[in-house]
Order: sequence, then C-alpha cells, then structure tokens
Amino acid sequence: MGDKITSDALKTFFRRDLFAEFVGIELLDAEGGRAKARLRLKDHHRNSIGLIQGGAIFTLADLAFAAAVHSRGQIAVAIHCSISYLKAAKGDLILAEADEVSCGPKIAVYTVRITDTSGEVISLFEGMAYRKKESWKL
Amino acid sequence: MGDKITSDALKTFFRRDLFAEFVGIELLDAEGGRAKARLRLKDHHRNSIGLIQGGAIFTLADLAFAAAVHSRGQIAVAIHCSISYLKAAKGDLILAEADEVSCGPKIAVYTVRITDTSGEVISLFEGMAYRKKESWKL
Amino acid sequence: MGDKITSDALKTFFRRDLFAEFVGIELLDAEGGRAKARLRLKDHHRNSIGLIQGGAIFTLADLAFAAAVHSRGQIAVAIHCSISYLKAAKGDLILAEADEVSCGPKIAVYTVRITDTSGEVISLFEGMAYRKKESWKL
Amino acid sequence: MGDKITSDALKTFFRRDLFAEFVGIELLDAEGGRAKARLRLKDHHRNSIGLIQGGAIFTLADLAFAAAVHSRGQIAVAIHCSISYLKAAKGDLILAEADEVSCGPKIAVYTVRITDTSGEVISLFEGMAYRKKESWKL
Repeated sequence: MGDKITSDALKTFFRRDLFAEFVGIELLDAEGGRAKARLRLKDHHRNSIGLIQGGAIFTLADLAFAAAVHSRGQIAVAIHCSISYLKAAKGDLILAEADEVSCGPKIAVYTVRITDTSGEVISLFEGMAYRKKESWKL
Repeated sequence: MGDKITSDALKTFFRRDLFAEFVGIELLDAEGGRAKARLRLKDHHRNSIGLIQGGAIFTLADLAFAAAVHSRGQIAVAIHCSISYLKAAKGDLILAEADEVSCGPKIAVYTVRITDTSGEVISLFEGMAYRKKESWKL
Repeated sequence: MGDKITSDALKTFFRRDLFAEFVGIELLDAEGGRAKARLRLKDHHRNSIGLIQGGAIFTLADLAFAAAVHSRGQIAVAIHCSISYLKAAKGDLILAEADEVSCGPKIAVYTVRITDTSGEVISLFEGMAYRKKESWKL
Repeated sequence: MGDKITSDALKTFFRRDLFAEFVGIELLDAEGGRAKARLRLKDHHRNSIGLIQGGAIFTLADLAFAAAVHSRGQIAVAIHCSISYLKAAKGDLILAEADEVSCGPKIAVYTVRITDTSGEVISLFEGMAYRKKESWKL
C-alpha cells in the first residue's frame, strides 16, 4: 500500500492534527518516507527571551516526522524523540525536512533537520515510532 | 542569588513566554531547582488520531525544565531535550514536575515526569541546558 | 512468571554477556524491575585524557538496564539509549542502579543513575527496550 | 589551527584511549570534522543472546565522534550521547562514520552511522560535546 499514498492524502489526514494547525504548521510534502513542513514565525512562537520557543521548533519537526512515517501506510505512534538546539533562527520562517533512517515492521526511525531562512541548520531532531498493524484511513 | 529567587518572580518572567501562554501552559511553582507546570487539555491539543499531541506534552515539560533551571539565577538555553512517550493521557489535564539532576556552572540537567489525572506517568522528559554568565531580570 | 525470576538466575544469564564480562562488569542484583551493577576501574577503562571512557560507563549502565528489563521475564532488545555525562568519576569504582519507569507489553523504559565512590551522580542513562513474546531461559 | 590537524596526529592521540584499544577499535581516518573507525567482531563483543553488545557498538561510535570533534583542535568532552539500535549486525566487522552537524565555540554536535559488512545502517548515534579552550597536544 505504501507506494500508493499521496502527499495530498497525507495533507488531508494531518489537517486533523488540531495542535499542529493551532500552532500554524503547514505540511508541504510527504511521500516515500520523507516529509517537509514549514512554520511562519509569529510573535506567539517566541519565548521569554525573544527566541523561537523550543516547543514550537519541536512541534514542527514532530509533524514532519509523523507525516514521513505515515507515508508508509501504517498508523504509528511516537515512542521517543530527541532534539538538539544548535543556533537561534534568523528570518521569519523555519523549515523541517524528515528523512527515513530505518523502517521495520514495528519500529521506524527518522531524522529531521530544521533550517531557517539563511539555510543554516538550527536544530536536529530524531524520532522513533512504533508502527501498529492497521493502516490509517481518510 | 539563586536562593533569593521566588516562585512569583519566575511566574512573572515566564508569562513573557508567549508560546507557552498561547498553548495554555500554567507555571504553578518553581524554586530551588524544581518546578511544576500544568496544561488543561482542550480539543486544540489533540493530534490526527485524537490523542494529546506530542508537541503539546513536550512544550509543557520544556517549560517546567526552563523554570527549574532559571530558578538557579542564570539565563540558560536548552541545548538537548528528549522525551519518551509511555501511555496515552487520561482525563482533562496533565502535570509536569521537573527535578534537578545536576547543575554545574555551564551545563545543567533536569528530568521531568509528566502525569495525567490518574497519576500515571505518561511521558518522561530530560533536558540539558547551557547556562550563560548573566542572570535573568524582571 | 515475572515474580519468580531470581537475582541468581539473572546473574547466571548475564554471565553469558561476553562483552560485559570482558569489560569487567559485575551484576550485583536484579529483581522486580530494578538492577544494580558495578565496575571496578582499571587503567584500561580510561580514555586519551585519563578520564573513565564514556563507552565503559555506558556499557555498565546498559547492563543494569538489560538486567532490570529481563527481570520481567521476556527477552528484550534495546532500541534506544541515551546518556548524559555530568561529572568526572572520583575513586576506583562506579555503580549503576536501574529503575523502571514503565513496562508495557511491547515497550519498556528504565532510567539508570551512575554514581562514583563519593556518592555523586556522574552520569544519567535512559534505556528503551522492545520486549519479545518469548521468555528467556537458562 | 583546525586545518593543520592530520589524521596521523589524531590516530596517535587516540592510541592513548586505553578503553578503545582494549575493545579493539581502530581509528581509520579523522580530518575536517569527520572520522571513521572500525571494529573487527570477536566472540568477546557478543551479549547474552549472541548479538553484538550495545556497549561495543556505542564505544565504536563514540570514538568516531571523539576523533571528529578533536579534528577541530580543542579538547572536547562528551556531554550527551544517544544511540538507536536498528538491526542486528551481519558479518565480522562494523564501521562507524561520524559527520559534523554543528561546531560552535562551546558546543558541537555529530551524527555517526554504524554499518555492517552488508552496508546496512545497524545503529544511529548522536553525540554532543563541550569544547574546552585548550587545544589537545601530542
């Protein structure tokens, strides 16, 4: 089934992710174990010292990770995620690109690079998911 | 200076965390390397399969971690965070409790347990911060 | 079955862990989701700047984690581990104590505190295991 | 100074890493923020169920990470490492390749892919180091 899942179907599915919608995250593309998502930065994404809040960056990366693993067909739940914060973001948007490291029948692992408008990697995310037997459906 | 920082001062400081405010996180208490924060769960905290979104849980834990490390006086930035998702949350609020593992002059480490209304640990977070020389101020 | 597994049976089982034996790790105790292991420090545990090598500390913590999860009966394989290095070890032995955070039918999580002879926490380890259906046997 | 450090100088420096030597790890190459290390697998690298022990894989990855960060000149200590175990290794050697994600004045981050003789990624490692002011010397 995996190879029939389109980016459009995944975008429709993840529009139901109410928290990602609330935060303002846009899923740009998801197919074949990869995904891209974007966040246009607003004041409400900032923390107490004026930087982009770590939770906003994490949520963006997490959505790209979720879309990438769901492009493989089965419902999956995150079991472990980590994020390294490397630099402060410059500019008014950040982009997350998820790549598949490994996708087994039960466990799948993805890395996500988050870049700012200058193209620099500002954070590195890794997500591990547990894949259920059922496929997701629209 | 560390021992003079009150929970009230930290609450005022973290009210400037616009993303935590936007998400609906309340800092309950922060002092002496520990902190507690709470999130009352709403529909907009849910993901595409109806569970509390991982980014919302992470953001709650991250705020408790940030408050705990700032209770030591110096400005600190998160450099690495990880989260294990153990169970789905039951009930309508989740609570994060941060404890200090180690607070050196430059690097500090905290663990955060996130529990639901049944008292079960639903997620375990660990945060590492880099402490700057300057103290934060209101 | 979990409640019948003795610390002695686990010690016998882990004596087959040839790498832990090679490194010099002793399993002291394992029962009911908890375990303790010890490493007497020798010159061959040191790194290029004379400190205890991170891999030696990791291997000690990993054995305590493995023993703790196997005290629950099923064969388990580590899927994700992380370690924070907090201080240099003082004295001539280090001790690892594993505690269970969560033990589900498939996924289990343990934290391990590694202390030196002064009693200080020098490292904090977290391990996530995937539990197979089969029980281990002597 | 970074660009003058040769792979030969790093190999000499890491021959002082007594634990890596004891485990049987060979540093093959290290320069410009990258490094490669190899472990020829022996019986004493196996765990209680006959697989390559996680601590042996970690120690190999950790040495590649350490060599990569020391190729930048300053003494560095690991502060946080994580490893995902993806598959069992096939064949009689494993190879670790470290790449630089970010190297700031204080904090540097590397990812390490560990492959077996079939070329498959068996584990993914990430290491974060704190860089001291002093350069290392032979």
